[in-house]
Amino acid sequence: MKTPSEEIDVLRKQIDEVNAQLLRLLSQRAELVLRVAELKRQTGLPMYDPVREAEELAEVLPRNSGPFSDATIKHLFNEFFRASLDLQRGVRDRTLRVTRAFHETDTVFTVGEVTIGAKPLVIAGPCAVESAEQIEEAAAQLARRGVRILRGGAHKPRTSPYSFQGIGDAGYRLLAEAAHRHGMICVSEVLDEAGVAAAAECVDMLQVGARNMANFRLLEVVREAHKPVLLKRGPAATYEELLLAAEYLIIGTEQIMVCERGIRTFENWTRNTLDISAVPLLRAMSHLPVAVDVSHAAGRPDILAPLARAALAAGANAIMIEVHPTPALALSDPEQQIDFAQFDKFLSAIAEFLT
Amino acid sequence: MKTPSEEIDVLRKQIDEVNAQLLRLLSQRAELVLRVAELKRQTGLPMYDPVREAEELAEVLPRNSGPFSDATIKHLFNEFFRASLDLQRGVRDRTLRVTRAFHETDTVFTVGEVTIGAKPLVIAGPCAVESAEQIEEAAAQLARRGVRILRGGAHKPRTSPYSFQGIGDAGYRLLAEAAHRHGMICVSEVLDEAGVAAAAECVDMLQVGARNMANFRLLEVVREAHKPVLLKRGPAATYEELLLAAEYLIIGTEQIMVCERGIRTFENWTRNTLDISAVPLLRAMSHLPVAVDVSHAAGRPDILAPLARAALAAGANAIMIEVHPTPALALSDPEQQIDFAQFDKFLSAIAEFLT
Amino acid sequence: MKTPSEEIDVLRKQIDEVNAQLLRLLSQRAELVLRVAELKRQTGLPMYDPVREAEELAEVLPRNSGPFSDATIKHLFNEFFRASLDLQRGVRDRTLRVTRAFHETDTVFTVGEVTIGAKPLVIAGPCAVESAEQIEEAAAQLARRGVRILRGGAHKPRTSPYSFQGIGDAGYRLLAEAAHRHGMICVSEVLDEAGVAAAAECVDMLQVGARNMANFRLLEVVREAHKPVLLKRGPAATYEELLLAAEYLIIGTEQIMVCERGIRTFENWTRNTLDISAVPLLRAMSHLPVAVDVSHAAGRPDILAPLARAALAAGANAIMIEVHPTPALALSDPEQQIDFAQFDKFLSAIAEFLT
Amino acid sequence: MKTPSEEIDVLRKQIDEVNAQLLRLLSQRAELVLRVAELKRQTGLPMYDPVREAEELAEVLPRNSGPFSDATIKHLFNEFFRASLDLQRGVRDRTLRVTRAFHETDTVFTVGEVTIGAKPLVIAGPCAVESAEQIEEAAAQLARRGVRILRGGAHKPRTSPYSFQGIGDAGYRLLAEAAHRHGMICVSEVLDEAGVAAAAECVDMLQVGARNMANFRLLEVVREAHKPVLLKRGPAATYEELLLAAEYLIIGTEQIMVCERGIRTFENWTRNTLDISAVPLLRAMSHLPVAVDVSHAAGRPDILAPLARAALAAGANAIMIEVHPTPALALSDPEQQIDFAQFDKFLSAIAEFLT
Repeated sequence: MKTPSEEIDVLRKQIDEVNAQLLRLLSQRAELVLRVAELKRQTGLPMYDPVREAEELAEVLPRNSGPFSDATIKHLFNEFFRASLDLQRGVRDRTLRVTRAFHETDTVFTVGEVTIGAKPLVIAGPCAVESAEQIEEAAAQLARRGVRILRGGAHKPRTSPYSFQGIGDAGYRLLAEAAHRHGMICVSEVLDEAGVAAAAECVDMLQVGARNMANFRLLEVVREAHKPVLLKRGPAATYEELLLAAEYLIIGTEQIMVCERGIRTFENWTRNTLDISAVPLLRAMSHLPVAVDVSHAAGRPDILAPLARAALAAGANAIMIEVHPTPALALSDPEQQIDFAQFDKFLSAIAEFLT
Repeated sequence: MKTPSEEIDVLRKQIDEVNAQLLRLLSQRAELVLRVAELKRQTGLPMYDPVREAEELAEVLPRNSGPFSDATIKHLFNEFFRASLDLQRGVRDRTLRVTRAFHETDTVFTVGEVTIGAKPLVIAGPCAVESAEQIEEAAAQLARRGVRILRGGAHKPRTSPYSFQGIGDAGYRLLAEAAHRHGMICVSEVLDEAGVAAAAECVDMLQVGARNMANFRLLEVVREAHKPVLLKRGPAATYEELLLAAEYLIIGTEQIMVCERGIRTFENWTRNTLDISAVPLLRAMSHLPVAVDVSHAAGRPDILAPLARAALAAGANAIMIEVHPTPALALSDPEQQIDFAQFDKFLSAIAEFLT
Repeated sequence: MKTPSEEIDVLRKQIDEVNAQLLRLLSQRAELVLRVAELKRQTGLPMYDPVREAEELAEVLPRNSGPFSDATIKHLFNEFFRASLDLQRGVRDRTLRVTRAFHETDTVFTVGEVTIGAKPLVIAGPCAVESAEQIEEAAAQLARRGVRILRGGAHKPRTSPYSFQGIGDAGYRLLAEAAHRHGMICVSEVLDEAGVAAAAECVDMLQVGARNMANFRLLEVVREAHKPVLLKRGPAATYEELLLAAEYLIIGTEQIMVCERGIRTFENWTRNTLDISAVPLLRAMSHLPVAVDVSHAAGRPDILAPLARAALAAGANAIMIEVHPTPALALSDPEQQIDFAQFDKFLSAIAEFLT
Repeated sequence: MKTPSEEIDVLRKQIDEVNAQLLRLLSQRAELVLRVAELKRQTGLPMYDPVREAEELAEVLPRNSGPFSDATIKHLFNEFFRASLDLQRGVRDRTLRVTRAFHETDTVFTVGEVTIGAKPLVIAGPCAVESAEQIEEAAAQLARRGVRILRGGAHKPRTSPYSFQGIGDAGYRLLAEAAHRHGMICVSEVLDEAGVAAAAECVDMLQVGARNMANFRLLEVVREAHKPVLLKRGPAATYEELLLAAEYLIIGTEQIMVCERGIRTFENWTRNTLDISAVPLLRAMSHLPVAVDVSHAAGRPDILAPLARAALAAGANAIMIEVHPTPALALSDPEQQIDFAQFDKFLSAIAEFLT
């Protein structure tokens, strides 16, 4: 007499045999379905035909005598229908180019002399370029502290039409000149087609802001500039939507860094809720480098260092932070920018993660 | 020669035959799987065995020659595994007792002389019972205006330990006496086992507050009181979680009304965001009556009437609203309660929906 | 001897006198502050001077002998500082042009022969214009049912770059021709500068989609077309942000209708959470008409009628709904569009609100 | 002639003088207001009297001749009214006992031989105590790896009434025996009054779960047990609400650790969104130690290490993680628990932060 374990082995062999037959039938069903699809195409009939699906179930279900419940059988046949419909419509399992399934190893790229995607970096600078003097001072001070990427807005998208909107295209040139004078590269946000052209002439990396993550026309224009891009996550965008926005870009350039900057939630002691899980999950799903903008997440200066430490400990490739010569006089976001003395403390706090 | 349409018919007959064979094989596989389950139970082996599943796939996938992709075949077999595991674990398609699948027609019940679940009702009264005089005045004024259900808190769950916590168990008696004196029934929130006993002696309907929706111990105590229950949705609870909380109650009583009272979102011009879709969806999924608490949703007096109109137009069975003789002097929620003059206007605004 | 009530009257006269002196001092302080501002302007000194504020408090607080606590006095002086700073910076109390404070009565405007902002309207049509035949059928069927505004997308902003993106500018002409042939006006979404030009030639009303609500460049281009605009709320935008986006538009056109279409929350039985409170609050704050898009809020066909009823009961000026000749064959959003038979039932369900 | 800078100095002296007069008037006004309050108390009149406030404004505003706008003057007087009302109601600036304003230095306490609030700790163990063997194996394996605090649920609050609800009070004893046998302390969740008594006899630290954070009755019972408490943040609770819940507890015990475990948002690749900003903000506002439960935040095993690294880098005092001898067989949360081999990797990944 067989032991239970031996009996299980026998049953498993039988299950394997049933599996093989199921596979054959599924393939046979798929072939039939493809032939129907061809005939439908010739005659202009729609591929999706819910009436026919209902008829098939009406044939199948009365014959079910268990042990699966009718609900389970219905569920399994609906899976067959869905797989068949994808087949008929020619949907293959598309692998997004931004995923590791498409490109396994980390994307690493070099802008000027700065390598992005390898050693963690700090991107710093004022919220907005306000004058030649202001950006020159920022560049000089930041370069002295080892920062390699200067940020600064030329055009500022502002919630109110009556707020300071940035100094315009001239800002791109001022930013780039200051950065290059001090051996840095620079990144600045673009808002529209004309701006992309103006920015692409001067700055090293184009930024698509959080509000524009799902502005697909802008993404199409940006990708045609064939420049490196910093793509920010929208405040209510899922990881999947962020990766799909990056997929829009990757058609034109592979030099993309995505950036978590906080999502909108009910908590209001912070401007946004920094979604730290985005760092390991985006890095696991995608080969693109991931930055974290701590200034827009926090919206307050007192927790920038711990947030940056957290981001780097979780694997972020870059930290973005707003630093202004005199935050109290800043024309935008005065409450979240820090000055150089505060930035020194910030750098000390994250130093262990930058080596 | 056959027309395309005739050819499709032939193919469909063949598909039907394949379907029948698939059904047979699925049933056969299920029988084998159940025998394995029995043997596992005898020998104490775990039902879920990811290694075995991987082995089965390793047998199946190399034999796949299309037209389905390996990913599709893997997906379909994973569905088989999941259905089989449910079968092995004895999980039948459990139908929740709160759903229409279990009980098709609307639940209608009578408390005192008030029928709940049929004609729309107004539940009104102060946030808290503050004194015999205050609740007597409220009851008299509201009864005169046709209100049949009086609300009022005896114990108030308050975010801060230093806020007014209600006058305690005595409040239940004052509320009930005032209500009954004026031919009304009453509802009041319960917070713990002792409170359920005290409340059940006096009040006609027990309320489980939003903060306690997922306090399952309280739900178990409440259901044992065999009293009608008003169950509020938690501020971050899904519809499904609300229905599962109601399922805790229905084990003890079928006289349950669920209540939408707004969910917590980023919008802060309202205290909570009234989720109006809850009304038709809960009513479609469940046979239980659905109330809407406009006061806690809005948290402000100026939009109570349009919200109540919306709720009634969407099919709500009851509207809950806080009315206080002198809102400015209320010991809790002074900013969202209205006085009798405002309540008159409110009633006029919703009159067309109450007939 | 005086009664308490008489005593209170005496004390109140004294308080009035103190109030008058406080007013004089506040004005005197403001004059001094303005003279400082002028001198600062001449010498280029910053207006905001936190060090000076700290010094003032250091003078004031030691002299405080109650009954106000130091914290209260500090709070009140900080309010003085803030009011003074606004004065120095020349910030007047700006009244937004979209608010009722600026324009008290309802904005009502006429497009073609359709009056918007008065009697409630239904805006219906397919998600996307797919062909001349499809949009002609939709127009004919909808016009026959009394619909006056036809919707249909020419360019579709899609999350994935590989989804159907609309048939392009040609769609604007097909939509307009179908609409006008049946005595309707039409509305269609614009995505960029080129599209605004193409759309403005044909369609009667330009739509700014939810994803583009904060695309301020697009708003600036749209307002220059001097066409009526339908502005959708972003899925994570506050009411205030929506009104500020409308303020961008009102600089170019006063013919604006804003549209609630659901916000993104944790609940996932609906595509978005319809924020019904938006209707009365936007209508109270602003003079602009308010529409509600029930299709994008629900993302499912079964609750469109109750949501539309709720929106109309709450005061919406228009309901927007996706209707397609054959939803199952739709190239986008097949799961939320309804057919004409379903639309007939929908119209019956809301008929009482349209008269 | 004076320089601008000298002139500014003169003006500032004048402003200081006006400030002093404002202070005197505010105090004088407050004295009058308190005398009115006394008379009102004698005669039973309400403190808050909006009609009187309107009258005062009606006296003041017509006399305003600038430079402040009427809106600004109205705002400032409303601030006076509010401060006065607080004074009348006897509201002093209450300092919460959980804040650093009340107790400046970090709270550090010792449970058994484990010091909480100093060096970072790891709290590990299965989701639920399932049997004596299971918890013994967990304890032995975890103790060997240096874990000092064992977790495990005896009663499990479950969304569905039909899910495994824990083995009950017996679990507390099994947990405690296993922990103590291996030189560890233990923590377990309590759900109601009876459970608190049972748990308090055995376990070293009582846990209040996320669903019960605002179950104030439970907090009151728990504080009376005078045991150390681990208080979890509710999934939709603000930082402020969490601190107020802790304030309920601190009345009975100062040995409290609060725990961030993710909040509910729209993102669904994680079970909850770990709100990393909670760590530095709670630590800055409060003197209580802060833990982070990475298992309930992530709801998936693959990002536990980066989340724990982030939490520790941000300053967390403890990491909480679910470890089970055989996760696939776990009776609850099988998808988020890890086994000992995975836990070894986890410990290596966070080792640098534990020294």
